[in-house]
Amino acid sequence: MAEAAAVAAMVPGLAAIREAAERLEGWAVKTPLLDSPPLNAKLGGRLLIKAEVLQRTGSFKFRGAYNRMSRIPEAARPKGVVAFSSGNHAQGVAGAAQLLGMPAAVVMPADAPKIKVANTRGYGAEVVFYDRYKEDREAVAAKVLAERGATLVRPYDDPYVIAGQGTVGLELVEEAAARGIALDAVIAPCSGGGLISGIAIAVTALSPGTRVHTAEPEGFEDTARSLAAGRRLRNEGSGTSICDALMADEPGELTFAAMQGRVESGFAVDEAEVARAMAAAFEYFKLVVEPGGAVALAAVLSGKLPIKGRTLAVVCSGGNVDPALYCRLLGEAR
Amino acid sequence: MAEAAAVAAMVPGLAAIREAAERLEGWAVKTPLLDSPPLNAKLGGRLLIKAEVLQRTGSFKFRGAYNRMSRIPEAARPKGVVAFSSGNHAQGVAGAAQLLGMPAAVVMPADAPKIKVANTRGYGAEVVFYDRYKEDREAVAAKVLAERGATLVRPYDDPYVIAGQGTVGLELVEEAAARGIALDAVIAPCSGGGLISGIAIAVTALSPGTRVHTAEPEGFEDTARSLAAGRRLRNEGSGTSICDALMADEPGELTFAAMQGRVESGFAVDEAEVARAMAAAFEYFKLVVEPGGAVALAAVLSGKLPIKGRTLAVVCSGGNVDPALYCRLLGEAR
Repeated sequence: MAEAAAVAAMVPGLAAIREAAERLEGWAVKTPLLDSPPLNAKLGGRLLIKAEVLQRTGSFKFRGAYNRMSRIPEAARPKGVVAFSSGNHAQGVAGAAQLLGMPAAVVMPADAPKIKVANTRGYGAEVVFYDRYKEDREAVAAKVLAERGATLVRPYDDPYVIAGQGTVGLELVEEAAARGIALDAVIAPCSGGGLISGIAIAVTALSPGTRVHTAEPEGFEDTARSLAAGRRLRNEGSGTSICDALMADEPGELTFAAMQGRVESGFAVDEAEVARAMAAAFEYFKLVVEPGGAVALAAVLSGKLPIKGRTLAVVCSGGNVDPALYCRLLGEAR
Repeated sequence: MAEAAAVAAMVPGLAAIREAAERLEGWAVKTPLLDSPPLNAKLGGRLLIKAEVLQRTGSFKFRGAYNRMSRIPEAARPKGVVAFSSGNHAQGVAGAAQLLGMPAAVVMPADAPKIKVANTRGYGAEVVFYDRYKEDREAVAAKVLAERGATLVRPYDDPYVIAGQGTVGLELVEEAAARGIALDAVIAPCSGGGLISGIAIAVTALSPGTRVHTAEPEGFEDTARSLAAGRRLRNEGSGTSICDALMADEPGELTFAAMQGRVESGFAVDEAEVARAMAAAFEYFKLVVEPGGAVALAAVLSGKLPIKGRTLAVVCSGGNVDPALYCRLLGEAR
């Protein structure tokens, strides 16, 4: 109990998110909240897309990485940072390191999408590969970290990372309010839970009538199951998914503490539903959304989270996808 | 001379563009000006994308259509509007008509992209087809117009349409100034010239050090040739182009008057250059850009408009493209 209370005490509040927003001002893109009248007419409700694919580095991950890394003391900066990531956090950390003038090494799975590897290197970071199925990425990262005396930038279980990702929720609620839009619910993709916990903190504080939900790929719905059970559960299988960004084994300790009492429930979507969501983002919003970035949209378009007569905000969290896979999925969706 | 002076007197000024921006407030998307540090590093300059693919109806055309149609007197609204368009103006007019509660009929070529036809109907407009190679679209539109007593909404040769499209330039210059960015040049796609003339009016008035250029598909570079000759010239061939949005035969009378002295020169790009630009928009900006919407980006990436050591703003004007063509071009670009 004492330990749970200590974890709960580390959950950032709205003030931390507002402070993150100030740090990100001028660096992060204030991504638009997009509307499609023809899609709304088809759905019988209102669907707003928070287009985080347009964020610097192609996903929301830049927000948390920059907020965290901007706190590293000047004296520690020359030794740089280390991160482990399937790709989007890698790019977020690499992009933030470039802006802050710090070296960065990123431990990535050997089967990460080529575009994510190339872009991480494009921001000047070093990429260290590991085998996703045989090696423990935290152990690999720990070794690199010890060798360099660098600072670890966790992908989600860090209060500054959560607060940074929470700026997605802050922007979303503030723009909806400015446009006179009452949001019935917000839904975002979930892996370790940094994005959804940050959003949940902002949304429940500023718009208590708005419900918060998560979406995950089938087979990786550890968060949905954990929310239902009221305790952290691991994924049972050891499969793979086209949603390479969403393959965490269980919710983070801190992120799960933040979600409890704030996130109502989670939905799981299959590959065909993801492909149709990516095709809808192409057709109605002109956005390139990667599979993992499309799961929340898939949860709505599949009818799992009902939209009829309601107004929902959906986060499309990333757009870093190889063109061959993208076009295969667009083709399957027709 | 008297006639030329009369035309010149109809060219809208900055005040008309500012007034259009006020009318569009809350209806048009203030599209983001996006930056890609890895692409900038590769190019040795700074390339900013004005993402008009995110505009309501999937292209900038909504701006001019809404500005024009909002001036139609209440008494004339029940009889509706008629437009002729290869697709993006059709959707812009249909989207504006829906907001203004007016019926709309759109005369479109029979070979217009399916997505543009479907979306035009999705906004509640009636589509009247004609044969692009055998019939004169203006004559077809005139017949529909006479039958209904409706108001014609011209695609470009109208002061309100030009002023509406000019809000792209106004937003672009204002955002660059707010972010402390000095623009060396702005380049936008061109067909009849509504977009580029509106942009040129705003940019030359507010940022006199910024040069303005156009881009067109090869074989349809009537504007580039007209600018060089100092008088309106027609396209010579009667070919076709993947850039279905950019197949006007000559610059408009009013748009050309607006361009003279404001637009420095035009560039022509080929299909391979367009495909590579679409792939770059996919990779670096996560934007779906249609072929015609990508010609300005193609002019920069091909090196025709030099970027090394300079800062250029590039308008990506529309994203309404069928997925099969999109994926064919992405594949060819690799």
